[in-house]
Amino acid sequence: MKADLSQVKRLQVKLPLVLLFTLGSSGSIAATDLPQPSHGIDYPAGWDQWSAVAVSHRTDNNTIRLILGNELAVKAAREGQTNPWPDGAILAKVVWKDTELENWKAATVPGEFVHAEFMFKDSKRFTETYGWGWARWVGPEQKPFNEGAGVCVACHTPVKDRDWVFTDVPFFPQFK
Amino acid sequence: MKADLSQVKRLQVKLPLVLLFTLGSSGSIAATDLPQPSHGIDYPAGWDQWSAVAVSHRTDNNTIRLILGNELAVKAAREGQTNPWPDGAILAKVVWKDTELENWKAATVPGEFVHAEFMFKDSKRFTETYGWGWARWVGPEQKPFNEGAGVCVACHTPVKDRDWVFTDVPFFPQFK
Repeated sequence: MKADLSQVKRLQVKLPLVLLFTLGSSGSIAATDLPQPSHGIDYPAGWDQWSAVAVSHRTDNNTIRLILGNELAVKAAREGQTNPWPDGAILAKVVWKDTELENWKAATVPGEFVHAEFMFKDSKRFTETYGWGWARWVGPEQKPFNEGAGVCVACHTPVKDRDWVFTDVPFFPQFK
Repeated sequence: MKADLSQVKRLQVKLPLVLLFTLGSSGSIAATDLPQPSHGIDYPAGWDQWSAVAVSHRTDNNTIRLILGNELAVKAAREGQTNPWPDGAILAKVVWKDTELENWKAATVPGEFVHAEFMFKDSKRFTETYGWGWARWVGPEQKPFNEGAGVCVACHTPVKDRDWVFTDVPFFPQFK
């Protein structure tokens, strides 16, 4: 094989940048390990620590779901300010295949992890997709979904009058 | 009716304390409005902001559930340190009757709020109930359940070898 000098040169330029990111990361996973964007939207790292908005179970595709929100979204949910949701709100839907709980046969619980999908409310940035940015990261490795937001919007059309959100916010007691 | 002087005297002693609590509260709900203890355990105010551990759906009593954890419990869950759970971990199970989602008939979602029940891990304090404090607050008004932890323990006996916890911790991707 002949050496491709242009590639070698590019590597020389890139290496210091990679090192910079790796050394600069304070967490156990380097910044460069974050999943790539989905539909141009950055991965919302740390979403697994968000508070809950709701849960659901779909019997048409045998999945069980957890709906989370960033701080702004949870506040809006608890206060019933959800039509429209405020700019800056992010909703996450975490999806697992459902399975039977070994120790309680009548209970359906999460099995295999499917994906995490997100709606980012920004009425100025996402004017072409009804004020929402639509993103999805697939599987445990969180591979970005980039087949177009049209797929998301098509499925959410039945709830276009509910600011495109299926979730009915349930009651949560709130004692501070 | 004859005045019961001993009761009047007791009231005189108590009133300033009540006022103190009410005036001292910085939130919108006075400290005195917090639900009373369940099985001697204080109400874990603010639990609705906790992160999620899991979800479940029970077809034997038609309820759908959200399992939350305090910071210590969520950390233990994500790291798989759940048999035993660490002292200080608190698990919350939030229970709603299930109902059909109007805009997606094959989806089951929360309806009427039933109760929030909790397990408080403290192997020193709760030696008589297998290292856990068991508490429940019922309905939107969060009325304390005080019929004895035996009710809770009896139901959880099938999982005594799993540190008395039914929940199988599901996979969560974690990118910081």
